[in-house]
Amino acid sequence: MKRPSGRTADQMRPIRITRHYTKHAEGSVLVEFGDTRVICTASVESGVPRFLKGQGQGWLTAEYGMLPRSTGERNQREASRGKQGGRTLEIQRLIGRSLRAALDMSKLGENTIFIDCDVIQADGGTRTASISGAMVALIDALRLLKKRGALKGEPLKQMVAAVSVGIYQGQPVLDLDYLEDSTAETDLNVVMTDTGGFIEVQGTAEGTPFQPEEFNAMLALAQTGMREIFELQRVALAD
Amino acid sequence: MKRPSGRTADQMRPIRITRHYTKHAEGSVLVEFGDTRVICTASVESGVPRFLKGQGQGWLTAEYGMLPRSTGERNQREASRGKQGGRTLEIQRLIGRSLRAALDMSKLGENTIFIDCDVIQADGGTRTASISGAMVALIDALRLLKKRGALKGEPLKQMVAAVSVGIYQGQPVLDLDYLEDSTAETDLNVVMTDTGGFIEVQGTAEGTPFQPEEFNAMLALAQTGMREIFELQRVALAD
Amino acid sequence: MKRPSGRTADQMRPIRITRHYTKHAEGSVLVEFGDTRVICTASVESGVPRFLKGQGQGWLTAEYGMLPRSTGERNQREASRGKQGGRTLEIQRLIGRSLRAALDMSKLGENTIFIDCDVIQADGGTRTASISGAMVALIDALRLLKKRGALKGEPLKQMVAAVSVGIYQGQPVLDLDYLEDSTAETDLNVVMTDTGGFIEVQGTAEGTPFQPEEFNAMLALAQTGMREIFELQRVALAD
Amino acid sequence: MKRPSGRTADQMRPIRITRHYTKHAEGSVLVEFGDTRVICTASVESGVPRFLKGQGQGWLTAEYGMLPRSTGERNQREASRGKQGGRTLEIQRLIGRSLRAALDMSKLGENTIFIDCDVIQADGGTRTASISGAMVALIDALRLLKKRGALKGEPLKQMVAAVSVGIYQGQPVLDLDYLEDSTAETDLNVVMTDTGGFIEVQGTAEGTPFQPEEFNAMLALAQTGMREIFELQRVALAD
Amino acid sequence: MKRPSGRTADQMRPIRITRHYTKHAEGSVLVEFGDTRVICTASVESGVPRFLKGQGQGWLTAEYGMLPRSTGERNQREASRGKQGGRTLEIQRLIGRSLRAALDMSKLGENTIFIDCDVIQADGGTRTASISGAMVALIDALRLLKKRGALKGEPLKQMVAAVSVGIYQGQPVLDLDYLEDSTAETDLNVVMTDTGGFIEVQGTAEGTPFQPEEFNAMLALAQTGMREIFELQRVALAD
Amino acid sequence: MKRPSGRTADQMRPIRITRHYTKHAEGSVLVEFGDTRVICTASVESGVPRFLKGQGQGWLTAEYGMLPRSTGERNQREASRGKQGGRTLEIQRLIGRSLRAALDMSKLGENTIFIDCDVIQADGGTRTASISGAMVALIDALRLLKKRGALKGEPLKQMVAAVSVGIYQGQPVLDLDYLEDSTAETDLNVVMTDTGGFIEVQGTAEGTPFQPEEFNAMLALAQTGMREIFELQRVALAD
Repeated sequence: MKRPSGRTADQMRPIRITRHYTKHAEGSVLVEFGDTRVICTASVESGVPRFLKGQGQGWLTAEYGMLPRSTGERNQREASRGKQGGRTLEIQRLIGRSLRAALDMSKLGENTIFIDCDVIQADGGTRTASISGAMVALIDALRLLKKRGALKGEPLKQMVAAVSVGIYQGQPVLDLDYLEDSTAETDLNVVMTDTGGFIEVQGTAEGTPFQPEEFNAMLALAQTGMREIFELQRVALAD
Repeated sequence: MKRPSGRTADQMRPIRITRHYTKHAEGSVLVEFGDTRVICTASVESGVPRFLKGQGQGWLTAEYGMLPRSTGERNQREASRGKQGGRTLEIQRLIGRSLRAALDMSKLGENTIFIDCDVIQADGGTRTASISGAMVALIDALRLLKKRGALKGEPLKQMVAAVSVGIYQGQPVLDLDYLEDSTAETDLNVVMTDTGGFIEVQGTAEGTPFQPEEFNAMLALAQTGMREIFELQRVALAD
Repeated sequence: MKRPSGRTADQMRPIRITRHYTKHAEGSVLVEFGDTRVICTASVESGVPRFLKGQGQGWLTAEYGMLPRSTGERNQREASRGKQGGRTLEIQRLIGRSLRAALDMSKLGENTIFIDCDVIQADGGTRTASISGAMVALIDALRLLKKRGALKGEPLKQMVAAVSVGIYQGQPVLDLDYLEDSTAETDLNVVMTDTGGFIEVQGTAEGTPFQPEEFNAMLALAQTGMREIFELQRVALAD
Repeated sequence: MKRPSGRTADQMRPIRITRHYTKHAEGSVLVEFGDTRVICTASVESGVPRFLKGQGQGWLTAEYGMLPRSTGERNQREASRGKQGGRTLEIQRLIGRSLRAALDMSKLGENTIFIDCDVIQADGGTRTASISGAMVALIDALRLLKKRGALKGEPLKQMVAAVSVGIYQGQPVLDLDYLEDSTAETDLNVVMTDTGGFIEVQGTAEGTPFQPEEFNAMLALAQTGMREIFELQRVALAD
Repeated sequence: MKRPSGRTADQMRPIRITRHYTKHAEGSVLVEFGDTRVICTASVESGVPRFLKGQGQGWLTAEYGMLPRSTGERNQREASRGKQGGRTLEIQRLIGRSLRAALDMSKLGENTIFIDCDVIQADGGTRTASISGAMVALIDALRLLKKRGALKGEPLKQMVAAVSVGIYQGQPVLDLDYLEDSTAETDLNVVMTDTGGFIEVQGTAEGTPFQPEEFNAMLALAQTGMREIFELQRVALAD
Repeated sequence: MKRPSGRTADQMRPIRITRHYTKHAEGSVLVEFGDTRVICTASVESGVPRFLKGQGQGWLTAEYGMLPRSTGERNQREASRGKQGGRTLEIQRLIGRSLRAALDMSKLGENTIFIDCDVIQADGGTRTASISGAMVALIDALRLLKKRGALKGEPLKQMVAAVSVGIYQGQPVLDLDYLEDSTAETDLNVVMTDTGGFIEVQGTAEGTPFQPEEFNAMLALAQTGMREIFELQRVALAD
């Protein structure tokens, strides 16, 4: 088996995390996993959704979008179609759940953090890149809230990151790009904490069902990739 | 740890599969997992969606809904809200992918099968009950197509079923009901084939992240439950 | 003239009213008029719509839906089309007006009752079956409100029921099933009170206009059918 | 009982039918029933909806709208709300069914006639005025089609008109204006042919249920009014 | 160059302004520019939109619509399409901005004025006719508010009117009708105050780009037309 | 008068045009006017909209969007609101008309070019930056079509660019940034060709109406800016 990119089975694409990418948002990151590029912003608004009013805690919610021509063929703009598709809703729900797992909402004060992940260029793994990049934007927003004295303690419980793994031509591989993803037998997205726990595991057999041992091999690859991402997040945040 | 229902950790709720539940659909099943009740129908229409035209193969698609008062509190009817929510879209995409894995589309002829899963009464596990019941409705529809001579071979590759497992009060349990589901630390939906492969694995940590060993314990429980469901499908279809 | 079902012109289909059909709703009824089957629930929420706030009275509103495959050919799900059709809106407005006529809103307290009528299987007369069945679910909900001490007197003014009549092959007939309905010259839906008054009369000539004497013959048949339905409601509620 | 307008119980409001009211439509009528004013146009397009293609017959469909300030209080524009309300859909379905009853579709050729009824000023009875006025616009459109040689015979089977009657302060009255309509106990809309048959009868008890004899008294009043409207249609069309 | 209507280059179509055209609105005007006919109403509601609450000032907003058959070919009703098109939104935003320029909102009290412009018959220049006519309806509404003592001073700063000019067959012309508009090289809509200032200037080259000197020639024509419209507004309001 | 940025009245912000910004689109440009940054892509699809079928010509259409946090305060995502706002529709119609003016559609072959302008960071003048940048992306797409032999001649008639001018603190200034734009008395967007003709002129008085001489001063400033933009387009395209 040879990967189209020439990478080894356990090799990630080059990752770049650029902070302060745009000037308005409290946190703004351009994250790149190879040719996949996503702008992740974290916006802070005071107040919480109605179902949380008066409970003295905060909230985080996420939205996801793709520029119409971020992909090989142009996709119709969801704003002009008049609704977000099922895939979009599924991804933004995943991003939201994943990042909420990083926070202790009771320490956030009555603030809402909006995470926006907008794909500028897609080449596989946009949802996992979004989570990994948005985590850094979230930290920047939290630091700002701390400076403003708007927090009620330290809301950060743990760092969160995500990576995709899969079975490509019969073999488990790490961090699939589009060429691999579009023909992979199995696609598995894994969200983890830097303390080694799983937040989300979403595996789908596109063709042949996968076996328990393949599953474990993929999880091991994911753990390998995760270490690299957590390290890159740390470096980016240390600047 | 004591489960609210008094069940043991590896005990399923009583399951009932009633075929020919309504008279119009090519396949029509009422599936019950304890108090969870779902009407699953399989409807056949000749022709396929545009993206498959002229390829000589068939298609299967699924939709999911809940009656407004299938739940403890009334939910607003999605038809009157004017759109299906993210959870609904996510579930119906899952049902569709899962059942497509049971079929060889090239043997189906240019036919489309619409799966409709409508929850009459919800008590946890509606998506997994839907998949397990719709599989039986699908078989009834395939038998009818075979009688009509509309197939190009045997489209059924394997049976598919689904079950939920989770971590409840620190312990892995099988087939969560609503009381468990609403407070579980982790919720894991597993879709498998009767040949032992995984189709979908979707795990979410609601609170504490889960560890690899907990993950494996949950998968083992799922496999236990799956055997029971496959047996009940077989019995139902033998009538 | 021979009716497809072999019934006489003034003969209703067998009617069954099953109370407590699902467990969550304050009132829950499965009503069957022959092969027409509708789940009718009555849900109670405290509070009233904005236009009634602060007037010390209650409200009742109704929604209607059909499962996609309750009919001979599959109908597109209204939730996925993104709107309720004209027929649906017309029927749910009719159900709401009819059941409001049963109540003295000033005795209901500031409560809203949501009636949901969902057709599981359609074989003609779904709107009249819905009204007749929902009336029973409504009584169950009122009894519960009374037990809770949430009422300001007896809100029930009178029982309400509905039946369809029509001109089939030149002759007035009672309680049309789908085979008759789809070819009837005239279709007339009648909603009455158990004290003999009319709440709604909606007659439509599909082909030949109908004459005053035919109209009177149809109303007489409706009155016959109504006596039977009111008796069955009474029996069901006496259990 | 004294009617607010001083009319006798069987007295219609002054009716005016102005043909060729706007210049673009094949038929264009301003109809006035007292202060109720509706612009009714009949537009011809060649071709028929998909469900009628290739059957060699025509079709007629209707839409209804109210200018936002045609009423005492401004109504939100349905175009900006993003959907037509239930009342609008109900009325336009009624107008369509009523006017289709005037035509033999097999003589119309493969043409579609769009009826648009737009209320400029509302003072009760807008749906019945719409039907009575649109009938005249429809005739003008048919005459034009005949001139163009686009018909396959005479599609007009009979004239159609409509009027509202009701029980106001305990007494049957003809042609209710807004003041009466808003407090009437019963409201009955009647659509008839000039040959004396009923097309639609839609009665609603707003308060007290109505009795059979009241029903008959209202129908008699409707027949009185209908004669006047048919005469005015004839006069207008003779110009 | 000869204009299809035989008018000279600087000649307006006959203009008619009919006040009190319908009875419910606080201001109601039928404005006619040749065959273009628009009903303009001004409706007053107490209260202001949320973003202005508590600032002690008023607001004005506008909506625009066309009857489906106001045009040569029938347009689909925006209410049934489920949204207002881009052209509609653009025009109603223009009407709103233009008329707000006539008012000092701080003198209006916490009232909102809704302007509705509905085109009954279109023959070019509907947006400029709408503005010119709605200005008169607005004055009528202000006079009523003054009588009711609901104003906090004189909100009227200046009169506003609008006219279209363009390049037709190479020559600047005033007040284009549909025949001219549909083939004009340039179309320029101008909104001015009666004190000679510009409120809006919107020019579009449909074919050949226009030159600065053509631009100035068009503006001069617009000023000519404007004088006539302001005079007609004055006359209408003096009745 | 001092501009917040310290620029002189006729000084543009620094402009950067980066070609091949993303990899999938036929033309892809990042355009920067100071802190305003817009991704402009030109996507080619064979075929034309229905209203142009069979006429042997091409088409160009444009869409515009802003990332939710491209602005100082987060805007709700239009895709999740379910519709594009009036401002968005107005801007994308303007972009489409402006760029169509650059082309001879009869030379384009039956191809459609989709222009997408997505604002990454907003600081005033997003619509004019979009037009100026999309012009370059369009040229790249045309060059590709030429290489593929898909053109029927040279479709490019002229280059198009756009700039905003306005009255800020009583004085005409060129290329307003957000601080100026939000308090400017008048805002004027000008679209021109490199041959000196006007394509679009859209001026709005936000406060005081503007006078003819101010109008001319603004147009002169626009012409100054335009020369600079056309030069930068040429340089970028020469690389």
